[in-house]
Amino acid sequence: MSTIVALDTSDVRFPTSRSLDGSDAMNLDPDYSAAYVKLITDHPAGHTGDGFVFTIGRGNDVQAAAIDALSHLVVGRSVEEVIGDLGSFARSLVGDSQLRWLGPEKGVVHMAIGAVINAAWDLAGKLAGKPVWQLIAEMSPEQIVDLIDFRYLTDALTREEALEILRAAAPHKEARTAELLEKGYPAYTTSPGWLGYSDEKLARLTTEAVADGFRTIKLKVGLNLADDIRRVGLARQIIGPDLRLAVDANQRWDVADAISWMNSLGDFDLAWIEEPTSPDDILGHAAIRRGIAPIPVSTGEHMHNRVMFKQLFQAQSVDLVQIDAARVGGVNENLAILLLAAKFGVRVFPHAGGVGLCELVQHLAMADFVAITGKMEDRAVEFVDHLHEHFLAPVEIVRGRYRAPLTPGFSAEMKPESLADYLFPTGAQWQDPPVARPAALNGSASTDGGHQLSHHVQV
Amino acid sequence: MSTIVALDTSDVRFPTSRSLDGSDAMNLDPDYSAAYVKLITDHPAGHTGDGFVFTIGRGNDVQAAAIDALSHLVVGRSVEEVIGDLGSFARSLVGDSQLRWLGPEKGVVHMAIGAVINAAWDLAGKLAGKPVWQLIAEMSPEQIVDLIDFRYLTDALTREEALEILRAAAPHKEARTAELLEKGYPAYTTSPGWLGYSDEKLARLTTEAVADGFRTIKLKVGLNLADDIRRVGLARQIIGPDLRLAVDANQRWDVADAISWMNSLGDFDLAWIEEPTSPDDILGHAAIRRGIAPIPVSTGEHMHNRVMFKQLFQAQSVDLVQIDAARVGGVNENLAILLLAAKFGVRVFPHAGGVGLCELVQHLAMADFVAITGKMEDRAVEFVDHLHEHFLAPVEIVRGRYRAPLTPGFSAEMKPESLADYLFPTGAQWQDPPVARPAALNGSASTDGGHQLSHHVQV
Repeated sequence: MSTIVALDTSDVRFPTSRSLDGSDAMNLDPDYSAAYVKLITDHPAGHTGDGFVFTIGRGNDVQAAAIDALSHLVVGRSVEEVIGDLGSFARSLVGDSQLRWLGPEKGVVHMAIGAVINAAWDLAGKLAGKPVWQLIAEMSPEQIVDLIDFRYLTDALTREEALEILRAAAPHKEARTAELLEKGYPAYTTSPGWLGYSDEKLARLTTEAVADGFRTIKLKVGLNLADDIRRVGLARQIIGPDLRLAVDANQRWDVADAISWMNSLGDFDLAWIEEPTSPDDILGHAAIRRGIAPIPVSTGEHMHNRVMFKQLFQAQSVDLVQIDAARVGGVNENLAILLLAAKFGVRVFPHAGGVGLCELVQHLAMADFVAITGKMEDRAVEFVDHLHEHFLAPVEIVRGRYRAPLTPGFSAEMKPESLADYLFPTGAQWQDPPVARPAALNGSASTDGGHQLSHHVQV
Repeated sequence: MSTIVALDTSDVRFPTSRSLDGSDAMNLDPDYSAAYVKLITDHPAGHTGDGFVFTIGRGNDVQAAAIDALSHLVVGRSVEEVIGDLGSFARSLVGDSQLRWLGPEKGVVHMAIGAVINAAWDLAGKLAGKPVWQLIAEMSPEQIVDLIDFRYLTDALTREEALEILRAAAPHKEARTAELLEKGYPAYTTSPGWLGYSDEKLARLTTEAVADGFRTIKLKVGLNLADDIRRVGLARQIIGPDLRLAVDANQRWDVADAISWMNSLGDFDLAWIEEPTSPDDILGHAAIRRGIAPIPVSTGEHMHNRVMFKQLFQAQSVDLVQIDAARVGGVNENLAILLLAAKFGVRVFPHAGGVGLCELVQHLAMADFVAITGKMEDRAVEFVDHLHEHFLAPVEIVRGRYRAPLTPGFSAEMKPESLADYLFPTGAQWQDPPVARPAALNGSASTDGGHQLSHHVQV
């Protein structure tokens, strides 16, 4: 028997605003950051449970403080009890009767809960010697539904309906696991499409993306319509008619603006428009979808919980949906969302990028393929080639597909030297001028780390 | 010209969980708390701008940290510039491109923004020598719409439509102000109805409430149906057929549960069922409303922003609605919500109680009466007789009605000795055993302060 003896948080920030990587119509100067949590145990193997909330800079300290505020629900608990019943663990965090007031189930506190739940999954994976996608995939349908809080869902998805979906998948799990391990899971890339990039850079990166094997490319839109028509046209010309081209407005528009803007982009056979308006606007998305058909509508990376996703499906607001591994209440709530999407027949294109989001969300997509839907060729996980060098087990992309991770855990653990160097505001990278990266990090598994850093600092 | 020279926050908590005051089906052990903000100026009159987020205990430190995280947008700004254009001030807080990620426009960060905006209104009122309700009431329709962020609203309410509503009210403002000053604004009381109370206490407090002139009483429900039928029947018997009786489930139910539970309370001529389910569930409320008609449905105290209220009205999910002065983005966003409610013809029964919520929200209801709807007899502001003694200008209730406050500002400023005594965890009241209240506070304007304290500690 072992115990969670401490919950440590770190405010880790990467100075990405020094370049224009990650810029979009609403987020002009992000410093990609992680409010990072490490569950320390006295387990003889020395395992920790690692998780984080992704933020874009200011407020990362508030996010870390919110994680600290959960300590009383975590520290002192038995490791075996927590990882043996992750459903009860999740409900104990969501149900804190005083913290609940600060959401409920939304914003900083809910994201903190998600990070701690994800950290517990990381620990569970490490102790089981399995990656989290496989840990989920090997659970029985009954074990999976026990993870889920069906409160507020039963008018759309009951425990029995979820069990039916999972039981239908069960006989195929072995074959699907083999297929996943062989082929990997489709990825799509947003790297060419940031708003701050010149046409030349967009064209060069799009050409590279196609050469690298990506079958779907996404561009940011929403600042200037003439620019968007030119940029989208340029990308479509480069990728040809057979590859998918999506656009993302990052919540820029009101309903009428979204309809008129998107109808001006109607000639480019778009795969979807992502976040045309406020993530809260279930009915607005439905109106936009009616107004721009047949262009598919999508949202989700900023939707704060399963109740919002439920309504998105009930109102037929979207053609497809994003999930985010670090926005809602962790693996457990994302499983609820994946089961809702399966019931309503909505495809999932998980959101990633930022720092560490690719590492996390690949597990959820793969668990969905094996244990829920059995589908992956009609969907894809976002991929952005930033900041992976800071993780012990970075994602691996081969010919436009995520390789299934084999390292035990949730791929969430950052290198100790990265946690130290980018600690805000005292780490070496936050001194002025930035201090050169220590040799230890350059010598690590991800060989483009040095390039990545200089790119951020100098471009 | 003067400047905001500092933004000070305090984590203030009242040990209300030592009694069962404030207990409901979801919030079993609240410590009513305020994440308190004081904008310090170098104005020669020494005015400060005071505001707060109401919370129920744990996490109040996180909420205060979120307010601190807004300092860079506030400190150093000209007082005259801020209070001269509170619309731009509010947009500058909501629009911080990095903090926005932590919502957007929801949860801890959005409530922090609301507290700072409200503090600026408090300052504006003090400098103008007027209570905030009057400050708003005396603004022109154009000045009021300039306060509002219409982003994401224009499919339901445009700037021009808001102007029309305000212009229609303008000729009546003088007469309405006189009526308000003479009669006060209707209040309703939740004091008899907390779940922790015995039937005898419920009956005694209900009898007292009727004797005190309240025309609407509200009970908490949702833990046990047989108890609810008995308690609601008892209250109806005491108040007779002419007074309004409402119930509040504090988000306890799923859709089907709400429908069956409320249909079991169909014999008591209820004025409304409040928060039957998740505040996020726009479509769920609509389904419940259809399922329990003619019992009116209500929600709103936990709805996080104007986009949610917009949809509540668009989907015809409610018969009436609560607003909360400290949940959304301050006075400005509440004006947007009041104008939406006016356009859709939905009555507003503002949420209050906790600590200081009555003090704040009375201003919004009164501004609505004078400058927007001209209606108050078909609505009421919640009133709970707790913790008012800690404010410099506490609410005044006469025969079941709020007297219009005359003290300049937003009635938000707490007594310095209360801020000191209840500071968590170092204040005198948080020592074990609690330290007797200093004589200074007992000698202050609110003479029942000493009683209130002993009530909390001993009952």
